[in-house]
Amino acid sequence: MPYVNVRITEGNVTAEQKREVIAGITDLLVRVLDKSPDSTFVVIDEVPTDNWGFKGTSVSELRQR
Amino acid sequence: MPYVNVRITEGNVTAEQKREVIAGITDLLVRVLDKSPDSTFVVIDEVPTDNWGFKGTSVSELRQR
Amino acid sequence: MPYVNVRITEGNVTAEQKREVIAGITDLLVRVLDKSPDSTFVVIDEVPTDNWGFKGTSVSELRQR
Amino acid sequence: MPYVNVRITEGNVTAEQKREVIAGITDLLVRVLDKSPDSTFVVIDEVPTDNWGFKGTSVSELRQR
Amino acid sequence: MPYVNVRITEGNVTAEQKREVIAGITDLLVRVLDKSPDSTFVVIDEVPTDNWGFKGTSVSELRQR
Amino acid sequence: MPYVNVRITEGNVTAEQKREVIAGITDLLVRVLDKSPDSTFVVIDEVPTDNWGFKGTSVSELRQR
Repeated sequence: MPYVNVRITEGNVTAEQKREVIAGITDLLVRVLDKSPDSTFVVIDEVPTDNWGFKGTSVSELRQR
Repeated sequence: MPYVNVRITEGNVTAEQKREVIAGITDLLVRVLDKSPDSTFVVIDEVPTDNWGFKGTSVSELRQR
Repeated sequence: MPYVNVRITEGNVTAEQKREVIAGITDLLVRVLDKSPDSTFVVIDEVPTDNWGFKGTSVSELRQR
Repeated sequence: MPYVNVRITEGNVTAEQKREVIAGITDLLVRVLDKSPDSTFVVIDEVPTDNWGFKGTSVSELRQR
Repeated sequence: MPYVNVRITEGNVTAEQKREVIAGITDLLVRVLDKSPDSTFVVIDEVPTDNWGFKGTSVSELRQR
Repeated sequence: MPYVNVRITEGNVTAEQKREVIAGITDLLVRVLDKSPDSTFVVIDEVPTDNWGFKGTSVSELRQR
């Protein structure tokens, strides 16, 4: 019964892409770890770029450089 | 000093229900584990149904079936 | 389909107490939010006291004062 | 720059299987979301079965039924 | 390659303050643990006060007292 | 009342270094965001290098290259 949390920066990710990520991770855990899709959760969090820090500053700032 | 994170799908949860969840979990940890309410955090995250995957697809998709 | 993560400091929590916490939180979410126990996960993390910080120092240190 | 956290119950998962999970999720995020492997973290947590609750009890208890 | 998640209550935190938090935590991990800024993520989550529980009730409620 | 979770790879981090990380993050949140140390938690998770994925493989594997 896996719980998977995918955290990414916000920005135009479609519902279709989210379903592909969910399906792909679920299939992988079924195939590699013999988990059941019926007890697998995949939760996607989209984080504003002001709130995601990398290399000591925000992604918003990094993208303006 | 427990930290509890409750993650649920979005959808019309009232402030009153949230307070009931917070109070109920805090009381439980006081009673079973002898924790203090003064150092107990309960954080509720409401996740859009497009972003919550179950059984290999999104909850949005599951609900349309 | 809730996912609940309970984080506490390590120290002699029994399997029976863990089951009480799991049962209590599951019942609460069923009662208050009308969730199903069949899709409710409760995951307990026990954290060493050196690794839990509070009031600017570790819990190990706080307990020696 | 995604961060992915995979939480599963403990039990004989090999280093090879972990690498397969890491590679599979990374490839998926590259392919579907155009992310870079150089800024993708995948962290696997293995949780004791006494600490993982499902259907209102622990997985340890569920497996004994 | 640290991943740091900072969770705070919502309320007028500026982009500048977020950058200060990101820079400060990154510098600290470089200095104390010899980590590289190029593989350090800091993610800030801002939580509505109705959703943050403390002392057995919500922060929204605590602030009205 | 912030909750901060620091996740790093396992490997000889001392109790003293952990206290420095806890103190440093707490001071930063007091200074930048005017938070109170009395309601600030900092939790450090040390993750085995087999379980931490980066650039599509495990850190254990990366270090052997």
